[in-house]
Amino acid sequence: MNFLEAKILADGVVKPGNVLKVDSFLNHQIDIRLMKKIGEEIKRRFSDVEFNKVLTIESSGIAIASAVAYVNEIPVVFAKKGQTVNSTDDKYVAKAYSFTHKKYNEIFVSKPYVKPTDKILIVDDFLADGEASAALIDLVKQAHAELVGVGIAIEKGMQPGGAKLRAAGVRLESLAIVESMDAESGFIQFREQES
Amino acid sequence: MNFLEAKILADGVVKPGNVLKVDSFLNHQIDIRLMKKIGEEIKRRFSDVEFNKVLTIESSGIAIASAVAYVNEIPVVFAKKGQTVNSTDDKYVAKAYSFTHKKYNEIFVSKPYVKPTDKILIVDDFLADGEASAALIDLVKQAHAELVGVGIAIEKGMQPGGAKLRAAGVRLESLAIVESMDAESGFIQFREQES
Repeated sequence: MNFLEAKILADGVVKPGNVLKVDSFLNHQIDIRLMKKIGEEIKRRFSDVEFNKVLTIESSGIAIASAVAYVNEIPVVFAKKGQTVNSTDDKYVAKAYSFTHKKYNEIFVSKPYVKPTDKILIVDDFLADGEASAALIDLVKQAHAELVGVGIAIEKGMQPGGAKLRAAGVRLESLAIVESMDAESGFIQFREQES
Repeated sequence: MNFLEAKILADGVVKPGNVLKVDSFLNHQIDIRLMKKIGEEIKRRFSDVEFNKVLTIESSGIAIASAVAYVNEIPVVFAKKGQTVNSTDDKYVAKAYSFTHKKYNEIFVSKPYVKPTDKILIVDDFLADGEASAALIDLVKQAHAELVGVGIAIEKGMQPGGAKLRAAGVRLESLAIVESMDAESGFIQFREQES
């Protein structure tokens, strides 16, 4: 069992409706020492490839993308949802369905921040149905940048996102893959991974 | 001139409508080396006081709050906007008007993450009208936690947020205070600060 799996068992809470609540350390309150270790572990798992930029999506991806960027000393770009008056640039736009908010979100990045010469590592806190990752990959493709891979803290292995990405030939590294969980007993089983 | 003022002069863009665009390094693409320096400088400015938690608001506050938390090795809590199915906890709720999005946002934190024993440093990327900071301070008060101060990357000194906070006795440290700016010439003047 790795450090993130151990943390999930210790402080994660399984809720009805297939919800794994980790907001005491990952996506509301952030355990910054844990986040550093996540950044280092994602760096380690992608140590055989080069990348010069980390791409994520607001909001909860920002902290983990920053952690990966810190240990690699490279910039983060976070895709934004919706539009603001401050975003007058040309943009790449993609659509992602949010099961949490039950609607389609348009996400975008300003064109100057994802270039054809960029080698991009996509990073996010969760992978479930894979909608956010697919939309981020779409942005990378539109920019004709190179996708190096996708680094995830927690993959919900019983949802199709991970399988879809792997079938599409995307290099996916998930630090913890939840194989099954049960709200009544609180039981969480992880997929075995080579360490 | 400090490092952040120099960076704003080099890479910030003044847009019509009183907009200072810094999304090439602060709130869309993130210059992670600059962010580390911002974290260290906010730590230095509050080095005479104790705090055990950094509070910010999603989304663009998360990277800078994480930077402050990294150098202090303490947790971040970010207040969320709106409601999600994953947030079934008891919450502290406050209202903040967003001039960017031209509507009131409800923001909240789950009660377990801001405790009466917490000494809170609020951190954000921008301070303009002060609506976000006021709402975060409201959350801290509701929790009966101690507010140590507010640390900001860029204060727009021609808007009333900073003056309101200082008049209310809040300790406010803004690394760069824009006194005036002009979209046509691109001119930016900073308020003089003791270094």
